Order: sequence, then C-alpha cells, then structure tokens
Amino acid sequence: MRILHISQNSLAFDQKHAPLASSETLREDLRYYFMSPCEKYRARRQLPWKLAVQILKIVMITTQLVLFGLSNQLVVAYKEENLMAFKNLFLKSYSGVDEDDYSVAVYTKQSVIDNIFYVLDQYSQLDQLSVGPVSYAEENRRLLPLVICKESYRPGRVESSDELLRLLVFLVNYRLVNVEISFTLKGINLQTISSHEPPDCYMFAVTITFDNQCHSGKVKITLDLDAVSSACKNWKISGTAQKNTHYLLIFDGFIILVCLTSAVLCIRSIVLAIKLLQRFSKFCLKKYNRKVCEDDQREFLNGWYVLVIISDVMAIIGSVLKMEIQAKSMTSYDVCSIFLGTSTLMVWVGVIRYLGYFQKYNVLILTMQAALPKVLRFCCCAGMIYLGYTFCGWIVLGPYHEKFEGLSRVAECLFSLVNGDDMFPTFAEFQQKNTLVWLFSRVYLYTFISLFVYMVLSLFIALITDAYETIKVPTQHA
Amino acid sequence: MRILHISQNSLAFDQKHAPLASSETLREDLRYYFMSPCEKYRARRQLPWKLAVQILKIVMITTQLVLFGLSNQLVVAYKEENLMAFKNLFLKSYSGVDEDDYSVAVYTKQSVIDNIFYVLDQYSQLDQLSVGPVSYAEENRRLLPLVICKESYRPGRVESSDELLRLLVFLVNYRLVNVEISFTLKGINLQTISSHEPPDCYMFAVTITFDNQCHSGKVKITLDLDAVSSACKNWKISGTAQKNTHYLLIFDGFIILVCLTSAVLCIRSIVLAIKLLQRFSKFCLKKYNRKVCEDDQREFLNGWYVLVIISDVMAIIGSVLKMEIQAKSMTSYDVCSIFLGTSTLMVWVGVIRYLGYFQKYNVLILTMQAALPKVLRFCCCAGMIYLGYTFCGWIVLGPYHEKFEGLSRVAECLFSLVNGDDMFPTFAEFQQKNTLVWLFSRVYLYTFISLFVYMVLSLFIALITDAYETIKVPTQHA
Amino acid sequence: MRILHISQNSLAFDQKHAPLASSETLREDLRYYFMSPCEKYRARRQLPWKLAVQILKIVMITTQLVLFGLSNQLVVAYKEENLMAFKNLFLKSYSGVDEDDYSVAVYTKQSVIDNIFYVLDQYSQLDQLSVGPVSYAEENRRLLPLVICKESYRPGRVESSDELLRLLVFLVNYRLVNVEISFTLKGINLQTISSHEPPDCYMFAVTITFDNQCHSGKVKITLDLDAVSSACKNWKISGTAQKNTHYLLIFDGFIILVCLTSAVLCIRSIVLAIKLLQRFSKFCLKKYNRKVCEDDQREFLNGWYVLVIISDVMAIIGSVLKMEIQAKSMTSYDVCSIFLGTSTLMVWVGVIRYLGYFQKYNVLILTMQAALPKVLRFCCCAGMIYLGYTFCGWIVLGPYHEKFEGLSRVAECLFSLVNGDDMFPTFAEFQQKNTLVWLFSRVYLYTFISLFVYMVLSLFIALITDAYETIKVPTQHA
Amino acid sequence: MRILHISQNSLAFDQKHAPLASSETLREDLRYYFMSPCEKYRARRQLPWKLAVQILKIVMITTQLVLFGLSNQLVVAYKEENLMAFKNLFLKSYSGVDEDDYSVAVYTKQSVIDNIFYVLDQYSQLDQLSVGPVSYAEENRRLLPLVICKESYRPGRVESSDELLRLLVFLVNYRLVNVEISFTLKGINLQTISSHEPPDCYMFAVTITFDNQCHSGKVKITLDLDAVSSACKNWKISGTAQKNTHYLLIFDGFIILVCLTSAVLCIRSIVLAIKLLQRFSKFCLKKYNRKVCEDDQREFLNGWYVLVIISDVMAIIGSVLKMEIQAKSMTSYDVCSIFLGTSTLMVWVGVIRYLGYFQKYNVLILTMQAALPKVLRFCCCAGMIYLGYTFCGWIVLGPYHEKFEGLSRVAECLFSLVNGDDMFPTFAEFQQKNTLVWLFSRVYLYTFISLFVYMVLSLFIALITDAYETIKVPTQHA
Repeated sequence: MRILHISQNSLAFDQKHAPLASSETLREDLRYYFMSPCEKYRARRQLPWKLAVQILKIVMITTQLVLFGLSNQLVVAYKEENLMAFKNLFLKSYSGVDEDDYSVAVYTKQSVIDNIFYVLDQYSQLDQLSVGPVSYAEENRRLLPLVICKESYRPGRVESSDELLRLLVFLVNYRLVNVEISFTLKGINLQTISSHEPPDCYMFAVTITFDNQCHSGKVKITLDLDAVSSACKNWKISGTAQKNTHYLLIFDGFIILVCLTSAVLCIRSIVLAIKLLQRFSKFCLKKYNRKVCEDDQREFLNGWYVLVIISDVMAIIGSVLKMEIQAKSMTSYDVCSIFLGTSTLMVWVGVIRYLGYFQKYNVLILTMQAALPKVLRFCCCAGMIYLGYTFCGWIVLGPYHEKFEGLSRVAECLFSLVNGDDMFPTFAEFQQKNTLVWLFSRVYLYTFISLFVYMVLSLFIALITDAYETIKVPTQHA
Repeated sequence: MRILHISQNSLAFDQKHAPLASSETLREDLRYYFMSPCEKYRARRQLPWKLAVQILKIVMITTQLVLFGLSNQLVVAYKEENLMAFKNLFLKSYSGVDEDDYSVAVYTKQSVIDNIFYVLDQYSQLDQLSVGPVSYAEENRRLLPLVICKESYRPGRVESSDELLRLLVFLVNYRLVNVEISFTLKGINLQTISSHEPPDCYMFAVTITFDNQCHSGKVKITLDLDAVSSACKNWKISGTAQKNTHYLLIFDGFIILVCLTSAVLCIRSIVLAIKLLQRFSKFCLKKYNRKVCEDDQREFLNGWYVLVIISDVMAIIGSVLKMEIQAKSMTSYDVCSIFLGTSTLMVWVGVIRYLGYFQKYNVLILTMQAALPKVLRFCCCAGMIYLGYTFCGWIVLGPYHEKFEGLSRVAECLFSLVNGDDMFPTFAEFQQKNTLVWLFSRVYLYTFISLFVYMVLSLFIALITDAYETIKVPTQHA
Repeated sequence: MRILHISQNSLAFDQKHAPLASSETLREDLRYYFMSPCEKYRARRQLPWKLAVQILKIVMITTQLVLFGLSNQLVVAYKEENLMAFKNLFLKSYSGVDEDDYSVAVYTKQSVIDNIFYVLDQYSQLDQLSVGPVSYAEENRRLLPLVICKESYRPGRVESSDELLRLLVFLVNYRLVNVEISFTLKGINLQTISSHEPPDCYMFAVTITFDNQCHSGKVKITLDLDAVSSACKNWKISGTAQKNTHYLLIFDGFIILVCLTSAVLCIRSIVLAIKLLQRFSKFCLKKYNRKVCEDDQREFLNGWYVLVIISDVMAIIGSVLKMEIQAKSMTSYDVCSIFLGTSTLMVWVGVIRYLGYFQKYNVLILTMQAALPKVLRFCCCAGMIYLGYTFCGWIVLGPYHEKFEGLSRVAECLFSLVNGDDMFPTFAEFQQKNTLVWLFSRVYLYTFISLFVYMVLSLFIALITDAYETIKVPTQHA
Repeated sequence: MRILHISQNSLAFDQKHAPLASSETLREDLRYYFMSPCEKYRARRQLPWKLAVQILKIVMITTQLVLFGLSNQLVVAYKEENLMAFKNLFLKSYSGVDEDDYSVAVYTKQSVIDNIFYVLDQYSQLDQLSVGPVSYAEENRRLLPLVICKESYRPGRVESSDELLRLLVFLVNYRLVNVEISFTLKGINLQTISSHEPPDCYMFAVTITFDNQCHSGKVKITLDLDAVSSACKNWKISGTAQKNTHYLLIFDGFIILVCLTSAVLCIRSIVLAIKLLQRFSKFCLKKYNRKVCEDDQREFLNGWYVLVIISDVMAIIGSVLKMEIQAKSMTSYDVCSIFLGTSTLMVWVGVIRYLGYFQKYNVLILTMQAALPKVLRFCCCAGMIYLGYTFCGWIVLGPYHEKFEGLSRVAECLFSLVNGDDMFPTFAEFQQKNTLVWLFSRVYLYTFISLFVYMVLSLFIALITDAYETIKVPTQHA
C-alpha cells in the first residue's frame, strides 16, 4: 500500500508533463505491476496463478513435512530404545540415567576390570539375554569379531583372547588412556509390519569406551551406538508391501514440480520487474533528464519473490534428499530435515505477504520494517555490553558454576536471565565457599539483570511503540 | 454508557422531526430499554429481578461446584492410592516412580519371565499381602478368572494353567508382541463412613501389559487400573446414612430451577429487544424513509444475554449429569465437570457486565472491545510465523530434544519461550553431539525468542496502550 | 509538595479577604504545619526530634530483628536435624527424602508389622545407637512410657506389652484405621556452649503414625516431632554465662521505650492537626460562611502518622513477646516474628515519607497514589475473570494435575502463569490419557495466558504509564 | 553530538564579541578537541592512533582471556574429577551426589565408626584401588603421616595407631564435637602431555571431617580437597616441551605494553583537556568577566578516558598475575581472573564510545544518561520497600522455607520473583502445617509480587520511555 502510494506519486508527476502514447502504456504497466492479485483480476481478468501455486505449495509442503516427521519418529524411538537396551545389557551398575555425557563412572581398578568382563560375558550370552531380535552381525558368512583396543602411553592392541584376564589386570594401570570395546550386532525393526510395510534391517555398531584420558582417578564408561539402516538380505518376506513408498515417491515428485513452477513464475516476475524498471528509468532520463532515485528503484525489487525462490530451492533439495533416504541410499536425515524445515518456515512466513494486501493486516510487517534499522543499531550497542559480560562471566565464574562453563553456555544463560528465566537457580548455585568470587557473582548478576531487564528491554518497548506510532498515522489516513 | 450515548443521539433526532404520541411512547420504551437496573428502579420502581436471580445463581453454582469438587477429591485420591498400591504389589522392582508412560522397563528374557511369575505369585497371596480391603471379584458366585493373553506374530492365547512355566519360557522370544495379564478385584471405600455416608464399593479391573511392540530389546511393563464404583451388594450396612445425598439432590434441583428462570428471563429480554427493534425500524422507515444502520441494530442485541443463556444451559446439563453420578447410574465425571466448570466461569465473567454499569469500572471491557479486532488481525500475522517455526522445529529438532517431540508439544514449548519460561533448559538440553543441528538450534531459538519477545510482545503492548488511549478520552468527557 | 500547593492556595485566598491578627497566626501555624523538617528548622530553629527518633528506631528495630533471626536460625537447624535423625533412626527403609507429606509408604501387612517392630527395637537400643545426647525422658523420677494407640472400626487401645506380636498380627487387618506410637525423649543443645551461653534442654515428643484412613492398600507412615525447650534441671553447669541475655533484655527494653516515644510524638501530631483543622474550619465558617471541603480536610490527616503508630504498636508487642521467648516462658515464635517482621517492613516503608520531602524523590508514591484507584477498579474486573478461571480449572483439571488440586493452589498456579513462570511444566504434565480433558486443558491454558499476559498486563502498563504522565507535568512545573 | 552542540554555542558567542587572534586559536583548538577521530583525520590529517590502539587492545585482551580460560578449564576439570574420585574412594555409602553442603550424613554410632575405619582401610590399600596416578606424598624422603584429630568437650588428639578400635568406640559419644582425618597424596596430571606440554604435579591435601557440632544426632561427613600445583621433582621428562609457555609470556608482555601505551595516551588527553579548560576559563574571565559554568566544565572531562585508564590498569595487573600463575609461583587464580574479566568487560563497553560517534547509534547511551538519575532516585524509594520485605520475609518465613534462610538468599529470591522466576515453587514449598505462617506467606507474596511486577516495573518502563522521548526529539532535528 505504501508502494502504490509512492508509484502513484511519480505517475501523477508523469501525467502532468508527458501525455504521450508510450508514456501512457508505461503508466498502465506500472499501475498493473503494483496491483494486488485481487485488483489484477478485476483490471485484466487475469487469474491469480501465482497465488494458487503458493497455496497449493503450502498445503503440499506441510503435508510432506508431517508425513516425513511421523515416519521418522518411529525410527528415532526405535534407535533410542535400542541404545537404552544395550546400555542396560552391557554396562554393569548402569542406573538407567546417564551421568553428564557418560553412562557410568568407576573409580577402582577392580571395577574397571569387572566392567570389562561384564561386557564380554553379556556379549557371549547375547541370544539368551536379549528380548529383542538382535544377533551377531556377519559379513561374507563370517561373524564379525569383537575388538578390544587399548591406548596407553606405551600403546598396544589386544584382540579378544582367552588369556585375557592376566593381561587386563596388568593393563589397568595409571598409564592407561583408553580401552575401547567395539562389536557389531544386527537387528530388525518389526514395528513397520503393523502398517503393512516391509521391515527395516539395522546394523548396530556398538562402541564401549573406558576413558581415562584425564588421569584423575575417575574412569568414564560410555556406550555409543551407530545404527545404520540396511536392506534385509537373509530374510524372506512374504505378502504385499513396498507399494506405500511408491505413492510417497510420486508425491515427492509432484512437490518438486510445484516448487519448480513457483520458482519459475517468481523468476519471471523479477525479470519483468527489471525490464519495467529499465523502461521507466530510460523514460525518466529522456523526458526529465533525471535518474530514478534509489528508493524508487528498491520498490521494483520485491523481497518476497527472493524469499519464495530460496524457499523453493530448499524444498526441492530437501525433497530430493528425502527420496534418497527412502531409497536407503543415504542416511543424513539431519541435512534433509533442515532443508525441509527451513523451506516450510519460509513458506508460512510468505503467507504474510498475501495478508499484507488487506490494508489492516500488515501492521506487523510495516512496524517491523520501520523498527528494524533502529533495533539493529541498538542491538549493536547492547551487544557490546552483552559480549563484555559474556567474557567476564566465563573467565571468573566458569570454575564455580555449571552454567558458566563454556562461552556459548554463558551467552545462553545470560540470554535466559534477560528473559527472566532460571534466575534464582543461577543465584543459588554459587556456594559461599570462595567469598571473593561469591561477592563478584552477586555484583555481576545484579548489575547485568538490572541493566538489561530494566533499561534495555524497556528501551525495546519504547523503540517499537515509537515505530508503531509512526506506522499508525498513515494507515489511518490512507 | 456508549449505548446510551448512541441511542440518545437518534432520539434527539426523533424529537426534532416527529413530536407524535406514538413516537413519544417509542422514545420512552427505548430510553427505558437502555437503562441500567438502578436507573430502571428509579424510573418505574421496577425491582431488578434479573440482577437478583444472577446474584443468587452465582452463589449457588459456586457452592455446588465447591461441594462437588470436594467430594470428588476423596474419590480421586482413593483411586490414585489404589493404583499406587497395585503397582507396588504386582510389579517387581517398581521404584515408586514411573518411567515416562510405563511403570517398569526390563531388558532380558529372564526378567520378563520373573516379572510375569511375580504377578501370579502376588495375585495368589493377595489376602495375606494387601493392607487394604480388596479381594477377588466374583460374578454369580463364581470367582472371575485371571487371564493371560499373548500376542505374537503367530498369535496364541493361554489361559492360566499349571504348565505355565515351560510355556512361558518358550513364548518369550523375539516374535512376542504383547503379554497382557488381566484380573478383577473388588474393594470397598470405608473412608466415607467417617462422614456418616454409606461406603462405596469398587470393582478394580487391573491390566498388566508387557509391551514388546517396538522389538527394540526393551519390554515396557504398564499397570492400568479401571476403577468402577458400584453398589455394595453383599455388605450389610447398619445405621443412619443416605440422607445427606437427598439434601444434595434437592439443592441440585433448586439450581436447575434458578438457571431455568434466568434463561427464561434472558430469552424474554431478547424477544422484547427484537420487537422493540422492529417497532423502531418500522418507525424510521415510515417517518424518515431510512433504514436503521447495522451499528444501531447491533446495539439492540445484547451479547451478555447470549452469554447468560449459554451458561444457564450448561449449568442445567451439568447439574443433571451430577445427579446421575450421585445416583451411580453414570461415571463420566469429566463431561459433567467440564459443563459445571465452564458455566461457573461464564457466570463469573458475567459479573463484569454489572460492574460495567459503574462508569469507571468498564475500562477492561471497553479496551478489550476496542483492541480485540486489531489484536486478532495481528495474531493472524504472528500466527503464520509461529506456525512456520512450529513445523520447522518439530522436523529438525524433534529427534534431539524431548520438548520438540510432538507438534502440540512444540507449540507449547514455543509459547512458553515467548513468555520467558524454561528458556535455559531448552537451550541446555541440546548436546553438542551433532554440530550441524546444534548450530541450527541456536539460530532457531535466538531468532524465535528475539522476534517474539522483543518485537511481537512489544507490539502487543503498543496495540493495547493505543486502544486504552482511545478509550480513555470519551470516559473522561462523558 | 502538593500539600503545600493546596494550602497556600487557600491561604492566599485568606490573605486578600481577612488581614486580621488571629487569621495571621492561623496562617503562620498552617504554613508551619505543612513544612518539611528541614524547613521547620530554618523557620523556627526547631530540631527535628521526630525524624531523629525515626532514624534511631530503624537502626534499632533492624538490629533487633537480625539478632533475633540469627539466634533463632540455630534453634531451627537443631530441631530440623533432630527430626531428620529420628526419621533415620526409627523409620525402616527411610530413604532420606519424604514422599509428599508422609515419610514412608508401605503396602503389605508384613511390612506394616516389620515397621512397628523396628520402631520398638530401635527405641529399646536408643543409647547404643544415637550419636546425639538424647535419652529417655522421665517425670518425677519415673521413665515416661512408650504408648501404642490403635484406632479401628472396633476401637481398642493397647499398652506396650510382651505379647505384642500375636496381638499386632491380629490387629493389622482391613478394619485398621490408625496405629500411633508415641514416646518422649530428652535432649540437650550443646551448640550454644561455643558462644558461652548455657545449653538449652529439650523435650522431644515423637509421634509415629501408621495411617490407613483411606483404606486404599497404602499405609502412610509419618513421624512428627514436637520439640519444647525447657530449663535444664539435672545438669550442673559451671562457668560464666547468662549475662549475654541480660544485655539483650536491656536492648529490647530500650526499643520499647523508643517506640513508645515515637508513638506518643505521632499521636501528639495528630491531635495538633485535628485542633488546627477545627480552628481552620471555625475560621472559614465565621469569615466566609463556607465549610472546608473534604479534600482539604483530608490534607490535615497524615496517613504516615497512622502507619508509624501501627508499626510502633506492633514493634512493642513483638519485643514483649521476644522477651517472653528468651525467658522461656513462651514458645510461640511465629506470632512474635510476624509482629517484629511487619513492624520492620512498615518502618522501612516509612522512610519513603522523608525521601518524599525531596521533590524529585516522591515519584513512586505520587504515581502509586494516582494509579491506585484505577488499578484497584481494574483489578475488580480482572479478578472476576480470574476467579472464574480458578473455579473452572479446579473442578475440571484437579483430578489430572497436581497443580490444580486445591483452590488456593490453582490461584497460585494461575498467578505464576500470568507472571510467566512454570508454563511449560504446567502444559507438559497433562498426559494425553483423557483426550477430552487434554483438549480442554489446552483451550483453558492458552486462553487464560493470552488474555492475562497480553491483554491484562499490557493494560496495567498503560494505566501506570498514564498515571505517570499526569504526575510528571506538575512535578516539572513546580 | 550533544557536546559539539554545546561547545559550538559558546563559540558562536565568542565569535561575535571577540574576534582576536588568540581567541581564534583557542576556538580552533576547542573545535578540534570535540571532533570525532574521523573528523580529526579530515581536518588535520591526524591518524587515529588512539582508536587503533583500542582496537588492537580489544583483540589482544579477548584472545588472552580465551586462552587463559581454556587452559584453566582443564585444570578445574582435573581437580573436580579428583575430588569426585576421592569421595567415591574414601566415603562409605557415598551415593555420587552431595547432600546440601556435606557429602554423607550418618545417624548411628556404629556407622560413624564404620566410616572412620573405611577411610583407614581404603587409605592403606590406595595403590591397589585407585585408577589414577596418585600415591602417598613424602617430604624429605619420609612419608607424610595420616593424622586423626578429635575435638570434644574434653579435647584429645590421637595419632594413627594400632589400638585404634577400642579407642574409637570409647571416643564416639555425645561429647564428641569433631573428628578430622587428614592426609596428603601426590598426583600427576598427564593430560597436558597430549598438547606437548610438560605434566603438572599436584599435592592433594585431603581432609575428611566428621562434624557433630550441632549435637543433633546427625553426624555430617565432608571431604575437602586442597589441590596445589607444584613442580614435578622426582620425574624424568624427556622430549620437547616448555616452549609453548614462552610464547605465552611474550604475548602477555606485549599486552602489558599495549595497555601501558593506551593508558599513557589517555592520560595525555586528560592533561591536554585540563590545560584547554584552564585556557578557556582564563579567556572567559578576562574577556567577559564570567566563570565557565559547571555543565560546560564537565564537557571537558571525558568519562570514557577514565574508563579506559581503569581498564588498562586492571589488564596490566591481571596480566602480571597471570604470568605469575604460569610460572607456578602463585595460585590465586580467582584474583587474576577477576582483574582480567573486569578489564575485558570494560574494554568491550568502551567500544560503545566509538559507536556513539555515529549519530544514530548512541541512543542507548544517551537514553541511559538521561534516565539514570531518575531511575536511581526511583530505585531508592523502591529499595526501601524491598529492604523492608527482605527483613520481614527472612524473620517470619525463614524457618519454614529454604529460600528465606539467609538475608542474601531472601534478597535474591525476591529479585527473582520480581523478574517472574520460580514463583510457583516459592508458593508451593510452604506446607500448610502452620496455618498462621501459611496465611502470612500468601499475603506477603501476593502483595510483594503485585506491587513490584505491576507497579514498579511498569513505572520503570514509563521512566525509560519518557527518557527516550526526550532524547528522540533532538536526534531527529540535529
């Protein structure tokens, strides 16, 4: 609406000075260019194809995302429960909850040895123990071996053997850096059968690490699981299945098509806009001998089109990746989900553009546009203080408080404090052991919170209220 | 007060042009219609019946709700404690706290079998074990059986038998999907005796499920309890009781009566208003040949009456359901409480209407009326971005963060973040295992929180402050 | 400052019409009455006694409160640790943390009997077990007995005896309501010796309750401790002590004196003000035949004096109670602390009055005065909706969510939600078991939070910003 | 920009009245003095040395801080893990989590004796147990002894001996105040080897305290670890190392140099400013016979220079301390980190000054400058009420609520409540045991939160919005 306002001003200017035929068509084209889909339909009976494509795209991309998410949820749950099961099976004295990043911590030589033997014992009895359909993995009809790898300051490598006990007792001394036990199991996800899909087979690469790198008297035991989905080779599956995925592939293909159409339409619009701009600037230069000012030029470049094109490209890449995953030739779920997720986010944000055609609806966008430069400039200043506090808090309070351990954690902690979260725990976790640091922490926290919550946040409100006031007036008069 | 203002304008308009007798009575009726109860009393000495009925209704409905809630609290506590007791009795190695949605998780075949036998053992010794008044349920003088139901990919059903052990060992293999042990117990709630009411009898349908649907090596054991209140058949109860419920039924009946009265009065008012509107529009049409504009028409339709009628209908339905529950012919407590609760909420909200008669009190309502359309329009725009973030967060962060597991959970999590809750935990729970997703989560959370807390919330304040300003001026002048 | 403004207006009015001698002294007295301590000193060289007394009072009352609190902290810690020690000594399978309101819960007959015997065993070996200085209490040289009290639907009372086992097995059946074991121990708090004070002796009345009132199969075991401080009779204490308390008593006496002085001075001021008001109104009536308007009359009644007098009376009562506690003739610590605490709060709030004499400092008070009526009126309206939500939430969500169990808890939970606390946990604790209630809870929470956080809170800001604007203008001009 | 405005006013005043040669140079110098680095470069081609030094300083100080923090993180982790390992080795029944401030609490004589013997047993088998490189410490080739120290009301000291058991049984009676077992171990941090640095040796002074000071029947066991880094004497280290620290020392030296330069430049600027001010005031006195007003004088004293000098001095002290720590002649890490952290904070805050040269960027600083006096004055008033609530809450609620136990904790708790944190837990933790205190706590919390969140915080927003309005106008016109 602001756009129309500006362009009509310059056209009004045209009208007075150059009532020529060519200028008349240019004027018409310009007016048409800045119309909303609704007005275009009224003016030239042009059906809003682009709008229809966008709406179709929203529905399809969201459906695709939801389907993908739901199917993936089962896989994630399956992997997590397997990890849990392996931890309970192979780690002695595992309590069901991980400590920090590791599963179990042991402190005596005896318990290190016990834990190593426990793993070996449980591994050897696996088929009697486990309630799930797992068994030893094999390659070319030979069972894959269990590998024990030991790293110490005089490095050595020990394969699974019978004389193991004597060896291990000897090995667990203070020079020990790492013991790593790794083996591979195969499993089958029967869960999919209930939805009449063929089962997925998995290779579980289990790695149990006894970590003594810190040499602090605490050996951390971690169990890592790398679950790779693979085709089920030695399983005979009878019955109808596999079809469901065909429908999905067709759907994905259709999405790619829609996104391509949308992208092509937007690129065409941008090209047309640039041509129109060139005609307009030539006209201006010829008639009035003046250049089109930058602000007017910017009106021709529609940021929304750029957004839509980026979103389309991401959706296409995401869909292709998704098809690869479904064909099991790829497993990088994360990259795919980031592409799909971001494109969906952009598509939904793009809806605001169409809401903006209704005069009363685009307060949010206009206010944001008006407030953004001020807010960013202000964020620069506040950011300096924020950075200073981040560094200062990390170096001084890091050794005494869990939340100040890493730079990114400090930044997140301070960000949460600004928003009024987790304040009392942050205060309370400092124990009064070291009085100097305790005092410093009080000064640090009180000044930071007061400064940011009361000064900076209030200024944000002031800035945006101010921007809203400036927006409100033309909206009322227009 | 705004209502009066408008109608007096149109009446002032009447006065000048049509000083007729019929117009005079219409004018009087109109003026009377828009009066507050207090003014009506002064004008025609009409006692404010409707107001009195409303006040009586508030008192009675709130009393009813509190009595119902208190009596129900005991029942809920009884059921919960029974569930707890059964979990402790029948589930081996139950720690007192549930893991996720299930009570216990086991990981080895042996422990599955142990747990099944433990249930059977405890069930057979029930009368020696339990401290509560529970015993085996019977129907037609025959004890109800304990049923073990096993679902596997080759389904089978096993009734409780002596050769059970051999069978079970055979059964617990990877094809197992489900084992379900179900039995029925009867109990008696003696607690009510202390308040001189007859005891309630209960049938407890206990279902213990060993869930291996996921085939991930983790068998989840859940205990579900379905407690149904029933009449105590084989118990001889002596002494005076039962009277208390009579009083309650009379009270409920009286409430239904009051609500009916209130509803009838409101319907009458609406009918009168419509008639008055018809007279007024006829009059306008005849005299000035113009239609009554829509805004004026809307003044005649009082939204409060609609609210009161809905509230009355809900209270009546709720009271009827409550009487059914007390007569033990129904157990759907939830539906009843939703009807009663919602009607009470509406009745209390309705009080604001009477406060609104005092000029200074209706700032809240007027400001809300003024701000509501803007706020809703603005919510549309913000909602698009919100939806986009919800989908995007679910698909990308779902597998890595508990709070992003389901779409509704993501929406709740984001809503909490906007209000400054649980921010640090949301940040902190992402572990730096997957760097790409970790980076994405930071960008995602920082942009979302900054956008919504600093931009959107500040705009809310701006919108409502603005609405308040526009409201304030006429209030001061009126 | 606003006061002075008004009074000077009316005096200016005097001046023109009645230049009489008596009016002149009245004018002088009035002007003097409305002066600040500083101006009074400049005008008549009167030393600000009242101010000095107030400052002295702040210092003394705060000192007294801190001393009292510190000494009490030790006593509280002593009692709490004893309670902990008794729980660990007498309750079998006590884990160190209480479940809900009870210490341990048991579910089988055998464990009830085991727990009862454990208590008796531990009690009989107390001197071999406990590390603290506790022993069996005696009265008139006879040991106080251990009492076992059993309540069942056929009530009976059993004294500690040898045939106990047979009896108990018989007793623990479903008719059992309560078993209560109570005994008394004596202890001595040696901790005070280190600060050269005489030790305090304590009588510990221990009550262990096996609660089966609910008859739900869950027997809750609670241990209650009633610790009464008493004089140490059979202990010979040598060395210097007791003096410290003398000083404290003198200090308390001095505080009472100061508070009395302050109260008397304030009452005198109020009396003088009333006399002055009478003179002024007589004068007005005689000269101009008009009454003093209510607003002017209110200027004479200084609310601060009332605050100071209430605070003084509370401080005096608190100090007397404190002396009683120190003399060990009373133990109601709570009443005393409430009196002392509230008086200290008022004394500190009273400081604002003196800050208000500096023109720029009294923004807070003036804005609050201006905003208070609007805020209260607005709170009425919001309160209705709040009450409605409270009742509705309690009845519907109570059985499904811990936070909605009691009416006061619901109110607190909603209050916290309005302030952005604990939002996600409130959402997340509803499990999707009952879909209808789950849906209701979402609608309930989203509407409540949106309404209150975005509409009501923003209106608060609008109201107070508005009040501040009206205050600011006269402040700048004055 | 405001500075320039003011000084140009006075110069404009100069220009009209005194067109002399000396006044002309003064004017030139003044104008130059108030220029930004950019303008100075344009005017006299002077390169912005000071700016360059500041930028260099920011980069270097931040680098130094990050390096120092990272190296220290390893040391802190090493110490913490050692503490954890010792607790697990020497404390019987240690659960992995500390209770309050102590590690384990025991309640019976037997368990006290068991725990003491456990320590001795584990100590004697240390080399068979521990997985870390620790061994008994020795001094002058003699092993350092394990010392058991017992404090009771008849004090005694017992050295480690064979007849220990009989003795201990005798000792653990109610007169016991403290048993302290202390011994020294030596360890080596091999972790540094991986980064090709020489290993650090540590002396661990372990103190295990059995604390019975309270005589409440609860003996608290704490393990304190004092880890002192020392040179590795009896270790032969081969290979290249030590160089890395050389580079670090050179880097630190360079930082000291830069900071010195920066401080000298700033002092020079201040001296120049004072001289200029003297010339200006002499000139004013001579020409117009008037003094330079205080506001104008303040313009000459640049607060930023003072900030930079303080920051430089702190950075220098911090760097020196850091060099001492690296040379292992000092261990006071905290003092060093406070100096380095604070100087880094100041350096980053100082960046805002340069942003302030861009007209649109200094909104934050100007608004803060404008709002600060009002905010501080207002904080005074609010602070009084806050203090009152703090004292009142401490004395009344202290014995019943963990968060109200100490004065500083109450202040922190109330501060968190104002910011909307931890509200529900604060409400919920009060149990309804003592009805009077429970009621008081509700009144206390509701009034405090309502007052501060709705009145005081809204006023903050009003104050700062107001300050922003006053700032905004000249910014737009300038």
